[in-house]
Amino acid sequence: MEVDMATSDIKSLFEKSKEFKNKTLEIKAWVTSNRGNKKIRFISINDGSTVQSLQVTCKGEKFDFDKLDQIHLGAAVEVKGIVALTPKAQQPLELVATKVKLLRDADLDFPIQKQGINLETLRDIPHVRHRTNLLRATMLIRSTLAKEVNKYFDEHGYLYFNAPIITSNDGEGAGETFVVNDGNSKDPFFGTRKATLGVTGQLHAESYAIGFKKVYTFAPTFRAEHSNTKKHAAEFWMIEPEVAFYELKDAIKLADDMLKSVIKNTIKKHPAEFKFLNETVDKGLLERLNHFLKTKLSVIDYRDAIKELAKVKDQFENQDIEFGLDLATEHERYISEKIFNGPVAVINFPKSFKAFYMQQNDDNETVAAFDLLVPGIGELIGGSQREVRYDKLLQRALEVGISQEELQWYLDLRRFGDSGSSGFGVGFERLVMYVTGVDNIRDVIPYPRTSGNIKM
Amino acid sequence: MEVDMATSDIKSLFEKSKEFKNKTLEIKAWVTSNRGNKKIRFISINDGSTVQSLQVTCKGEKFDFDKLDQIHLGAAVEVKGIVALTPKAQQPLELVATKVKLLRDADLDFPIQKQGINLETLRDIPHVRHRTNLLRATMLIRSTLAKEVNKYFDEHGYLYFNAPIITSNDGEGAGETFVVNDGNSKDPFFGTRKATLGVTGQLHAESYAIGFKKVYTFAPTFRAEHSNTKKHAAEFWMIEPEVAFYELKDAIKLADDMLKSVIKNTIKKHPAEFKFLNETVDKGLLERLNHFLKTKLSVIDYRDAIKELAKVKDQFENQDIEFGLDLATEHERYISEKIFNGPVAVINFPKSFKAFYMQQNDDNETVAAFDLLVPGIGELIGGSQREVRYDKLLQRALEVGISQEELQWYLDLRRFGDSGSSGFGVGFERLVMYVTGVDNIRDVIPYPRTSGNIKM
Repeated sequence: MEVDMATSDIKSLFEKSKEFKNKTLEIKAWVTSNRGNKKIRFISINDGSTVQSLQVTCKGEKFDFDKLDQIHLGAAVEVKGIVALTPKAQQPLELVATKVKLLRDADLDFPIQKQGINLETLRDIPHVRHRTNLLRATMLIRSTLAKEVNKYFDEHGYLYFNAPIITSNDGEGAGETFVVNDGNSKDPFFGTRKATLGVTGQLHAESYAIGFKKVYTFAPTFRAEHSNTKKHAAEFWMIEPEVAFYELKDAIKLADDMLKSVIKNTIKKHPAEFKFLNETVDKGLLERLNHFLKTKLSVIDYRDAIKELAKVKDQFENQDIEFGLDLATEHERYISEKIFNGPVAVINFPKSFKAFYMQQNDDNETVAAFDLLVPGIGELIGGSQREVRYDKLLQRALEVGISQEELQWYLDLRRFGDSGSSGFGVGFERLVMYVTGVDNIRDVIPYPRTSGNIKM
Repeated sequence: MEVDMATSDIKSLFEKSKEFKNKTLEIKAWVTSNRGNKKIRFISINDGSTVQSLQVTCKGEKFDFDKLDQIHLGAAVEVKGIVALTPKAQQPLELVATKVKLLRDADLDFPIQKQGINLETLRDIPHVRHRTNLLRATMLIRSTLAKEVNKYFDEHGYLYFNAPIITSNDGEGAGETFVVNDGNSKDPFFGTRKATLGVTGQLHAESYAIGFKKVYTFAPTFRAEHSNTKKHAAEFWMIEPEVAFYELKDAIKLADDMLKSVIKNTIKKHPAEFKFLNETVDKGLLERLNHFLKTKLSVIDYRDAIKELAKVKDQFENQDIEFGLDLATEHERYISEKIFNGPVAVINFPKSFKAFYMQQNDDNETVAAFDLLVPGIGELIGGSQREVRYDKLLQRALEVGISQEELQWYLDLRRFGDSGSSGFGVGFERLVMYVTGVDNIRDVIPYPRTSGNIKM
């Protein structure tokens, strides 16, 4: 009996091997190894559905072994064969080939000749590096994480909202944006207004939360930061839910629930990929993720966190531990790893280094913001309750140098039935790094853009 | 018994009204109408889950009717009450209020004071126009269409691929791109390379199709076209699947199946919204969509289409009906409406006006491309089989003025196991327009960007 082509990807084959026993299968895929002799040949193929390759065994007179020997790594082939379970071998099954057809060979300079190429070398060849096991596993998980994020918000009744990318607003009040149209060129597309690439969709999302109640964005955002770190890219995807009537505590609960749900489902769908990453990238990966999943989120006030950090300030590079300190990764990791040994939300930050739109607390010094920190990485999510009082919002905007004229539409939301909303932003690539254990953002984005770097 | 807040949005209430009978409900929402007298007050509220508003009836001594009378349209309220089925009334149920709490009133200049505001006026206030029924219905359907697209590709085993937005490649070979970094400024972010906003993710998606087999993008794309039509925006979302080993006919089949599946599921989820649009925007909407769903896709060769059009050329504005004509909307609509009365794929277009990467047919004049046309709108999807032969691809790229150096990575895919792929692009907003019947792209994008126009 011929198995339906629609289900015959290699992932299904490994996951439901018993159902495929002795069945005839036809698969198109790419060669990942090719060894043997003139009498028997073992060709491993991968179709991108899993990090695992399928061994295709060729023996018997029907094969031209000289020809098989000449098939290079990376070649596209079509194989037909019978699934044989091999319970004693390393892999649970193989395909005993009846036909191997070379569809398109790969030239000898195909760069992926072995799996152990270092990541830096691979960054020069983003158009083929996903054909290594490491990038393959990472990109499969990236894709599933994105899908699970969409599913989570769909199941919880959120509107998927598309904020504009090109904007005349500057959401964070920060200056590091890409200019699309300076308004001074001969025939400026948007007239005299300065247009930049958005750093957040939040302000626009707030307008839709009023009316749709629960909305989220999942879209590219841009920062023209010249910093060259493992954590920063000029172009990255952000997930930004915004919920009307939510207060700070509700947003924190949502962040925790969303993260745990998305990570749990992703792990469940990728046993082979997580096994691979746990063995090759980070031996503590699965333990850390499972610990995260089962640990209740703690909450600590920023002032209390500062007190705790001050007690052990000797161990930090930045030792100015006092109110007003914008926590660095070393502090964040200490809080989540040493103090709580688990995920923790730090709340009520000084307003001095937080965005203008955050709800001002009664102490006049702090805002109703939170950062969600996790062991091993530090900040994963940042969010806040939004300032709902028109006067306070305007005052803070002016203080940080935003013109009222530019912001009037956003201010007006407060006059039109806005009874408050809360939300947060998840840097999607930060999440992918946390979940895969890959520690450089350049290796979790297909074609990363960083300062001075725009390949292909 | 108190019903779970999580299920108590107004959409669920209307859809499962019998389950809610006599139950106590608490809902936060916005006021869409407020009428009555000193003894009874009818306040309609909407929470954004559906185009339908819920009537809240307030009567009895517990209410301060002077206060209720002062609640303005757009106000945020929290109401508590008991669900009463009203089978004889226009709406199947109402909420008999026990409590109405004003959370935040709306100022009197809240712009949405009646539903019949014309669309042009609404375009000036994108931050509140979604609080009209028309925009509410449109944006709900937009969101669901996006979710169904994601679900379709997930269920069919596709990798969700994120192509770079900022690119040094120019996918279509067309010049109308936004420049992000001209390479001449003092401290150019990307060095000396010209960086533009992507017009397509396809070239990059092709590289991932080789290795992952089935991939798709769903992301913003940009065109700096100064044309001011109902169909063009400078920023819009594109869906671009790319499948290795697929030929033209497979891509056409995928496009047809994807469209029908996504549209069918979206209609099923929005009975109230489609009823509303069918009554107010386009009385033929549901009939047209249902006709599309049940009609088999036809296929016609471009040369045959030209012959048919030439026979009736008197009825067109552009009457130069001969080989080489880039079909205009009037021709496309004639083909799908008059010749086929249903969806049709025109295939094998002259290479002269198609992109360089399309597979060249043996006649040396045409390429293996298709446009999927639908009645009422014309082209909805364009796609092709990609040129897999290195020499032919290079030659065509050079002919249209693309430098080999810039394109080398893409050319090299053909040397590294690329046995051919096919794919297509769906302008997401074009799809939303087709499905909602809304005929101006500015009204299906939350914050549209067009030539000279960047509000908020």
